[in-house]
Order: sequence, then C-alpha cells, then structure tokens
Amino acid sequence: MTWITQSLMAKRGVAQGEVRSTHRIDEAAQGKYHYVYGPYAEPVLHVQPGALLEVETHDAFEGLLETEACVPSEKLNFPFLNPQNGPVFVEGAEKGDCLAVYIHNIQPRGPQPCGTTALIPGFGGLVSTADTAMMHTDLPERVKKVVVDPVTGVQWTDNITLPYEPFIGTIGVAPEIEAISALVPDYYGGNMDLPDIGPGAIIYLPVQTNGAYLYLGDCHAAQGDGELCGVAIEHPTTTTIQVDLIKQTHLKNPRLENEHFYMSIGSARPMEDATRRAYRDLIRWMASDFGFTEEDAYLLLTQAGRVRLGNMVDPKYTMGASILKSIIKQHTR
Amino acid sequence: MTWITQSLMAKRGVAQGEVRSTHRIDEAAQGKYHYVYGPYAEPVLHVQPGALLEVETHDAFEGLLETEACVPSEKLNFPFLNPQNGPVFVEGAEKGDCLAVYIHNIQPRGPQPCGTTALIPGFGGLVSTADTAMMHTDLPERVKKVVVDPVTGVQWTDNITLPYEPFIGTIGVAPEIEAISALVPDYYGGNMDLPDIGPGAIIYLPVQTNGAYLYLGDCHAAQGDGELCGVAIEHPTTTTIQVDLIKQTHLKNPRLENEHFYMSIGSARPMEDATRRAYRDLIRWMASDFGFTEEDAYLLLTQAGRVRLGNMVDPKYTMGASILKSIIKQHTR
Amino acid sequence: MTWITQSLMAKRGVAQGEVRSTHRIDEAAQGKYHYVYGPYAEPVLHVQPGALLEVETHDAFEGLLETEACVPSEKLNFPFLNPQNGPVFVEGAEKGDCLAVYIHNIQPRGPQPCGTTALIPGFGGLVSTADTAMMHTDLPERVKKVVVDPVTGVQWTDNITLPYEPFIGTIGVAPEIEAISALVPDYYGGNMDLPDIGPGAIIYLPVQTNGAYLYLGDCHAAQGDGELCGVAIEHPTTTTIQVDLIKQTHLKNPRLENEHFYMSIGSARPMEDATRRAYRDLIRWMASDFGFTEEDAYLLLTQAGRVRLGNMVDPKYTMGASILKSIIKQHTR
Amino acid sequence: MTWITQSLMAKRGVAQGEVRSTHRIDEAAQGKYHYVYGPYAEPVLHVQPGALLEVETHDAFEGLLETEACVPSEKLNFPFLNPQNGPVFVEGAEKGDCLAVYIHNIQPRGPQPCGTTALIPGFGGLVSTADTAMMHTDLPERVKKVVVDPVTGVQWTDNITLPYEPFIGTIGVAPEIEAISALVPDYYGGNMDLPDIGPGAIIYLPVQTNGAYLYLGDCHAAQGDGELCGVAIEHPTTTTIQVDLIKQTHLKNPRLENEHFYMSIGSARPMEDATRRAYRDLIRWMASDFGFTEEDAYLLLTQAGRVRLGNMVDPKYTMGASILKSIIKQHTR
Repeated sequence: MTWITQSLMAKRGVAQGEVRSTHRIDEAAQGKYHYVYGPYAEPVLHVQPGALLEVETHDAFEGLLETEACVPSEKLNFPFLNPQNGPVFVEGAEKGDCLAVYIHNIQPRGPQPCGTTALIPGFGGLVSTADTAMMHTDLPERVKKVVVDPVTGVQWTDNITLPYEPFIGTIGVAPEIEAISALVPDYYGGNMDLPDIGPGAIIYLPVQTNGAYLYLGDCHAAQGDGELCGVAIEHPTTTTIQVDLIKQTHLKNPRLENEHFYMSIGSARPMEDATRRAYRDLIRWMASDFGFTEEDAYLLLTQAGRVRLGNMVDPKYTMGASILKSIIKQHTR
Repeated sequence: MTWITQSLMAKRGVAQGEVRSTHRIDEAAQGKYHYVYGPYAEPVLHVQPGALLEVETHDAFEGLLETEACVPSEKLNFPFLNPQNGPVFVEGAEKGDCLAVYIHNIQPRGPQPCGTTALIPGFGGLVSTADTAMMHTDLPERVKKVVVDPVTGVQWTDNITLPYEPFIGTIGVAPEIEAISALVPDYYGGNMDLPDIGPGAIIYLPVQTNGAYLYLGDCHAAQGDGELCGVAIEHPTTTTIQVDLIKQTHLKNPRLENEHFYMSIGSARPMEDATRRAYRDLIRWMASDFGFTEEDAYLLLTQAGRVRLGNMVDPKYTMGASILKSIIKQHTR
Repeated sequence: MTWITQSLMAKRGVAQGEVRSTHRIDEAAQGKYHYVYGPYAEPVLHVQPGALLEVETHDAFEGLLETEACVPSEKLNFPFLNPQNGPVFVEGAEKGDCLAVYIHNIQPRGPQPCGTTALIPGFGGLVSTADTAMMHTDLPERVKKVVVDPVTGVQWTDNITLPYEPFIGTIGVAPEIEAISALVPDYYGGNMDLPDIGPGAIIYLPVQTNGAYLYLGDCHAAQGDGELCGVAIEHPTTTTIQVDLIKQTHLKNPRLENEHFYMSIGSARPMEDATRRAYRDLIRWMASDFGFTEEDAYLLLTQAGRVRLGNMVDPKYTMGASILKSIIKQHTR
Repeated sequence: MTWITQSLMAKRGVAQGEVRSTHRIDEAAQGKYHYVYGPYAEPVLHVQPGALLEVETHDAFEGLLETEACVPSEKLNFPFLNPQNGPVFVEGAEKGDCLAVYIHNIQPRGPQPCGTTALIPGFGGLVSTADTAMMHTDLPERVKKVVVDPVTGVQWTDNITLPYEPFIGTIGVAPEIEAISALVPDYYGGNMDLPDIGPGAIIYLPVQTNGAYLYLGDCHAAQGDGELCGVAIEHPTTTTIQVDLIKQTHLKNPRLENEHFYMSIGSARPMEDATRRAYRDLIRWMASDFGFTEEDAYLLLTQAGRVRLGNMVDPKYTMGASILKSIIKQHTR
C-alpha cells in the first residue's frame, strides 16, 4: 500500500515506517498472559522501533468456552478475563512519545469452530449490569460457536454468512503507575472494541512510561457497531503488527490513520462524553497538523465529521471521530 | 428504483407505494410556518395516501441570517425557530397506523449563497448549554454563508468543496395531545437531524392522531455525524415526498428503509439510551417481520448491526441502528 | 411564619406577599382536568396577584386504580395521565416575569385508603423503559393502597408507618407555544417530583406567556429521593396555595425558597446535567441577589452546596441545589 | 455511643467491634505515600481485626499548594496526586470478606491556614474536562487557603464561617489484580468524596485480596454535595479508625452504617447509574439482612429512600442511597 509511505508513521517515525526486524510471540514465548494494562509485568520482548511482530493471541475467554454446552458463569473467573499478549518493551519510548502500531494481518488459528460468542449474565448493552443496575433477572446464558474462515467468512447459521472483517479488540500501552483491567478502554488504548483497528490501519498510542509496554489481544472476526451483547466473534489469531515510535507528540487519546481517514478515539461514559472526547481531540489534531484554526475545524466537522461507535458495553464506551483525508488534502493543497 | 416495489411501503401501503395524486405547498400556500409539532394547527392540505407533495421549505432560521455580518443572538427569537411546513392531513390515518414518507428529491432554492451555518451561543455539542451548564463564557458568534449547488456541491471554502448530500432534518407527525417544539426529536419523529433521511429513503412514522398531521422542514445540504456545532448547512429547498399509509403497525419509534438497509431510530439522552432505544426497536422489527427470535436478533446485531449518529446537539440525541438487507435476505431465503 | 415577610415574594411581589383574595377550584369548578402544560386550554379562573387558591387535586391516576386488584396497564391510558388543575390566568403576568407560589397546606381528601402506589410496566428507575430499553421482560404489575392520615401518617404496612410529608409533584406555568405532557419536568416547572415543593415553601416559576397559566396536581403523601419505582404515595388532596407576581426576573429555571434555604431546580438527562443546571442557576442567583462573584459562589458551593434528588424516573430527572440562608446571611451582614 | 454495640460490625465482626490493639502511622512510619489502590505495594503495617489506627494523612495535594500565590498546574504532577496512607494488611482477610472501618475521629494537623481549596484547569463539575471535553478555554486558576479549627470551624472569609464537618474523602481496599489511581472511586471504595464517611460512621468494604490492603487519605474539613469545583477544604489530619473483619459477605459495593441509617454506595457514570447502583445494592441488603422481599424493598424505598450526592467531579460519580434505621426497626419488630 503506497499510502503508508505518506503516513504520519512513515514521515515522523524513528524507523521511518520501515520494517527493520522481525519477531514472534507464540503461545510458548508468551507463557503467562496478562489481565491488566500496567507497568508492573515483566516484558516478554524488547524491540527497537521498526519491529514486525507476529503474535499468537488467545480469544477473550482464553479458550474456556470450548463448546456450546458451556455455561459462561461457571467457566469464567473475573477478573481473569481478556488475556493479553505482551508487554513488549520498545527501546527509546518515553512518556510523551507516541507508539505507532501498523496492523498488517490477522488470521484465525486453532481448530474450528474457532469463533465464539455468548450471552453472559450482567453483561451487554441491552441488559441490567453492575452499573446500569436493574431489578430484572438475567437473560438465559448461551454460547454459540461458529466457523471462522478468512476467505469464506464467518458461518453464522446455515443461511447466514458474515464477511471476515477482523480487528484487534484490545491494544494499548501501560499507564504510568496504574494497572488497569484489560476490560477497560481509556486514554492509553485498551479494550476499545473499535472495528477500525484492523488490518491496514495504524493506531497511535500515547506512551506513558519508559518502554511503552505494548499489550494486545482480544481479536474479533466480525463485530457490529457497539458490540451489542458484549461479545463479538471472539477468536484466537495470529496477528502481525509493525511498531514504530514518534517522539514527543503528547497525545491525550489514541488516534488512528488508514488509507481514507484520520480518526481520534474517545472512551468515556456517558456516550456523549466519549463522542465529545473524540471530536475535541480531532479538532486539536486538525489544528496542530493540518493548518486549521480550532474554530474552523469545529465548523467543518459539523458538516463532514464521521463517527463510529466501537463499544457500548465496556466500562467506558468508545467512539471514533474521523475526517476524510480527501477533505484534508483539499485544504492543504 | 426497483427496490421500492419491494419496500414495506409498497407491500403494505394503502396506496401500494404508488403515486396517485400530486400537490404543491409553496411559500404562498403554506402561509404561516409552524414551530411546534402538534394537533392544534389547521392543516394546510388534506391528501389521500399516494400523494406526491412538492414542498417549499425554509431554512432553520427562516432566512434571518442573511449575511455573514448577522449576529445570531440578535436575529433569532426562541422559540420561533426551525419553521415547519404542514401540517398535512392524511385521510384515513388513525392512531396506531404508520405514515410512510418516501423522499424523492431535495433541491436548493433561492438566491446564492443559500447555505448557512453558524456558531450560536449556548448551542452545540462542544460548548456549555442550558443542560450541560458550565461556568465558561460563550464562544464568539459567527455566521458562514456558502454556495450550495446540487451538482458541484457545497462550496465550503475556496479550497474545500463538500458533496451535496441533502436530507430532511426535521420530519414527523403530531403527538396526540402535545405540541412540541420543532427543535425536539422523539418517538413521533421531529428534529432528528439524521443524514439517512434523504432522497431514496422511506421513513415510517408512528401516527398518533386522526389525519397524522405531517410536518417537515429544516433541510440540510450536508451534515457530519452528530451535527457537531448544532448547525449543519441549512438551506431553503424544494423537497418532493410521497406519502403512503400502513394500517395498525403500532410502531414505537420512527423506522427507515432504503435500498440497502432497515433502520430503527431512537432519540433520547444520554446517548447510550438513544442507541438502546434504536437497537431495541430493531430487534423487535427483526422478530415481527423477518423471522428471528429476539435473542437471535440480539446476537446477530452484535456482529452485524450498524449505528449512525444523527445529532448530539438537540434536546434529545438521535441514533439510527440498522441491519443490511443483504443479511436479512440470507436469513429469509 | 415570620420568615415569609422577609421572602423574595414579600419583598418584590406585586401583592407584597399578602393575601388579597380567596378562590376555590373544586372538582366541579375544574370540570375537565388537563394532561398537558400549554397555552391552548381555556383558563379555569382569572386571579390577581395575592390570590389564595384552594384546589381539589386528583391523584396521578385520576382515581382509576381503585383497588389492589387493578392492573395498571389495563386501567391507564397514556397520554391521559397525571391530571392537572388549572390553568389559572394571573392578571398582569407577562413573559419574563416570575410567578411566586407559596404553598400553605396540603390535605388528603376522599375515602380511605386514599393513597396509591404501583409497579407499572416500563416505568421506574430500576427497570427497562422506553428510553433505557432492555431485553428483559417487565416486572409483575402491582397496586398497593394505603391509608393516608395527616396526623398519624401513611400506614405502609401493619408494622411500618411513614410520616405524612406531602408536596406538590407537578406544578408550573405554560410554555409559550408548546403544550407538553404533565409527565415532563422542565424550565417551566411541571412534573418535578421534588419533595421540597411542600407546605412552607415558595416556588418561583418563570412566566412564558401572558397570564402565566398556572397548573398543578399530582400531590404526594410521601416520597423518597428519586421516586424510585416511579410512583410515590399518590393521593387526591385539597391544596392551598397563594399566588404572587414578581416582574421581569427572567428566570431560566424554577427556584424555591423556604425558611432555611434558597434552591435552584434543574431538570435534564443525564442526571449530572440536571445537577449542573441546578448549581449553575444557583450561582447566577447568588451573584445577582446576594453579592457574590460567580467564581466565589462556585467555590463556596463546593464547600456548602446541598443537593436533593427529586425524580430519577420522569422524562427528565430533577435535582435541587441549595444554599442555607444562614450562610447567605453571614455574607450579607 | 451505644449504637455501635448493635452495629453489624459488633454483631458479626471477628473482633466483635472491640478495640484490641492500637497502632500509629505517622508520616515517618508511612514514608512513601501511594497514588494507586492495588496489591503491588508493600504493606506499611500488619494488624489483626480490632486494631485502632491513628493515621497522619496528607492533604490531596501533599502540601504542594502552600500559599495562595501557587499556580496548581505548575505545582501538581498527574498522576502523583491524592497521596494515600497504607496499605494496611489485615490478618485473616480474604476475598469475599468485608472490612469494617469505624471512624473515631478526624483532627486537623499542621500549621494554619491548613485548609486548601483551588480551581484547577480541566477539573470540576461545571467546567470542560478531559471527558466532558469542550471548546472553551479554562477558567483562571486559583488557590484559597483557610484556617481550619475543629471547634470554631472553617474560616471561609472574614464574614463566613462553615462548620467543621470532616470526613475521609478516599478510603478503600485493593482490587485483586488492578492498581487504580487514588482519584477514582469504585466497588472497592477509593475516592468517593462522600461526606457521610466521617466520624461516627462504619464503612464496610468488599475485600478483594488476602490482607485486604486498606488505604486512606484525602480528608476534607467541609464539603458540599457534589464537591462542585472538584476541590473541597483539603487538609492534613490525624485520623483515628478502628478495623474489624466480617467473613464472607460478598459485597458488591461499599456500604455504610451510622447511628441513623444504612447506606449503600454506588460509583459510576452517568450519575443515574451511580444512583441505580446504590439503590440496587440497598435493595439486596434489605432483602438479605432485614427480611424484605426485593419487590417490597423497591416499593418502600420509593417512599422512604434517601440519596446523598458524594462527588460529581471524579472519574466516577458517587451516590449514597440509604434507609433510616427507625423504619427498619418498625419492620423487624
């Protein structure tokens, strides 16, 4: 893809967007997976900017929901959910820097049916939860296993096949002194469950600590906007990413770039605050990098901004606000 | 468009989706425009299902922001905002029915620059408002006038042209006994500011009272998701719609159909409630019309549901939740 | 009560806080009760400032839940809920004025048990509603009738008696051109369900239209903060109020004064916006009337502000933010 | 106080609500203060249930805002805010247990003026924040120092004195595997900023890990409901608490008991979810401990529940929902 050579990663990255080394984190190399994003775990790998990493991710249940006969509340043990690979220590990364992660490829792995979705008590966008606490009894639990084929797609039922549109549900860097559940999305990334974070995208993560401590996991084979019941098509994968480093950008939130648009990502509750956070950051980005006044960016996004709902089920909701590169190019020509 | 013959409007409508009469509501015929959605105004027109209506709409400011030198707070006089055409009395419409409105065409009218956007004190998604009341002083007011051409697009600046993607910002039927500001969206339609409500779409509105009392206005030449500052490219138009009637559907919210998807529309605060409302209704729709159990629809939307943010600035936020017809067709084949 | 002579009503009112005429609106005089707050109904009475009104209110169900065997969803017919007395036309009242209503007395009326509470499908703070729409089935319906005695209290069960602490659940003036369901609270008053609006309090309502059009109803014999299931101890009453008029105050929200504090009332969703609205208005009040800078008021309320949750079940949530008069007096001495 | 002998702590505690040992954590003993609640820090002290602890707390700024000339954004260094004493390892405490902390006394310490409040950029209930992100510029920064005297009160201005009503702003146990900023309140306690957590109250905290790991700090000399600008009267103190342990209660949220009421504490966003969380838990408590059905508790709280807003400024808002012991006693007599 030629656009990559024009990406912010290529233009500003320490490794200039080039692959300079390759690494592999398979299950054996990973050993113990992690359930929090924090600086307290021992890095599984040290790399330089320019590293290409092939990573064996688990599904969000660490494979515990093996068959449709499983009862999630019996198998799952909070807070030991959403196992993450990493942390990867990126040499030279310091607080205030930005870690660029270009997603090359996601492939399902393991025996079929390798896709899992489920109804889990107290979890989901249209049910009583610990936060939106109601008097109702929980819905019946349910596990659904589906074949996931990167070519033919996700075999939802005998009749319905959904396209394989994989992405990384959870990716981020470590907070400076906190260690936060991998179920949470926030300013450092985490469990955003935003479908744009898939192959062909670069995500920019605000580094909080020396080495950045990159984590990732929780890949989805398909997901609708909002991840309505809380569980997408979870599947174990081999995910290939490339890591670069941009010095001293002082991002406040994750950002994303792909061939078509620039996106700021906000995670917060209520959902309007997630949206405000995303749009506010995008305005700052348009002002700092593309020559708009903040007021002009605000007015232009009113007419041309795009919003993608990531999740409406996690401890914070996630929204992506974006502007087409085609519009930015008109402005800067 | 051939899909129209397969639409719910064509299959279930009293007029079978056919045009059976044509009417025109120009400024003279309309006379006084309206600022509330309610059953207390005198109908401007009585029509049968199958009526094609050509309507001259005002912009949301009734043309008062004539030049960029205007100061909105001096020109605008709340609650006399967002002037609406109508009400149109549809013969045979009763509480529990559904009014189908197929949008044929929207064309700008009047002298150029006919497009207006503005920064208005206390209004917008990223500023202090009466509800999200803050200690900050208001941003400076501003009016921006733009040329709107249906072929060449919206001339945003010398450099930037946005495509002309018009839609009806405000459309709905009267509540049964309430008369609610045209600034509000809710179960009867109103100020949804949802870009999908444009040419080629059919919107289904839940009738609350005899004759339905259809209102519309507030057409936008372009708008981003959320209508961030609160004011899209407002413009006066000639808008052509076709009205049909489906008996006793007992909708709880507006719904929409176009060539590609079925959408339920929810308006509420906070934004997660708008989204819940939209998705919950879409699940009911998939169960009643397309053969899913509610639980199966919930699970499927988790993987394939799509969400569009209409507005994040009006008294209620508006979200559209949709499912592709291509998926529904796989299921019902 | 001597404090009344020092109230804002007494100091600034056209009638100087004095009773100058007395009137009675019994059921016969009222005739048809109203279900919307608006300027379209015929006034039931014209009065001058200084009028004392004795009003026979219905309970919120207009007496339809006669026994515990009633099924609410069979008896109740939305939108014909929450019947209101009025409108009362107050001579001389104009947009921008403030209607002061001093609540003298509330007494239960009618045969015992005259108190009613209920579980109603789709209504309540801890259940799925039209807005917070969930997949759960509704809780079982239920009606509970209780004896309400102004002296001995509310006979909740054989064991539990709650004090009789009556207040007016719904009171307000008409919007200028809207007619809004009596179930809604907003800037003009309405269904606030705030227990401070009881005997001994003066509520200040922002007049929107000539004559003010005062409505009231929905008296509660007791209610907890939030009105959790959505239905307090509803009861028919004889309610005695006194009406005065303060010219050109340009209030943005209802305000309240009693012997002990000044309170601003905000209604909005989400609940933090209701709270912001209340506190923001209280800061303006402290600046305009009591000699604080806005910043000083903000800092002082951080240390001494008090918040009362009215309802968490109506279309907008209601919060009252208050400051003790004892603190104000220290400042202005 | 005799009620303590009838408290849940006394009736069910391992130490039967008795003081069995005394300890002191002064600044020297504490050494390094902590900025996260987690299980990764070394305990400063090991105690048995029944321990009385005298603790020297810092103010939330660790004393950095020494004079009114200080500029908060220059002095404060996120995330090193809100320094906490502890962790205290309580012998025998295990996941599923409940740590009871009875607050005996809070006394200001250090040179006067020892109280501090401030306006801090991007922080507060009525200003633009990282979450509720707006286009406005920040308010001017400000530091205000006040004399805090336990007898004469808080000397707010020459005219205004506020009563000294101290409480512990931040107290809790460690999450099982997370380490969360001391600025956050949640299910394990933390930065609740709820004025009821003061002398004479027992707070019950859900233990997540062996030893409980009790932290506390951030004492306030006075605070209004909501802690509106985000900064109460912060002050360094000597705080005396007593620790007991109740085995296997499996609490989901902190609870509180004092002479007059039982309270459940919910922290969440939006504010209605904090309220739901608090009320939902109180219903469970009334069912498990006091003989109500959940439905009866729901109905009774509708009439008699009380709500206290703790904070509307922290990463989660905090609400306390309570029921008077006098009502519970009627029921259980």
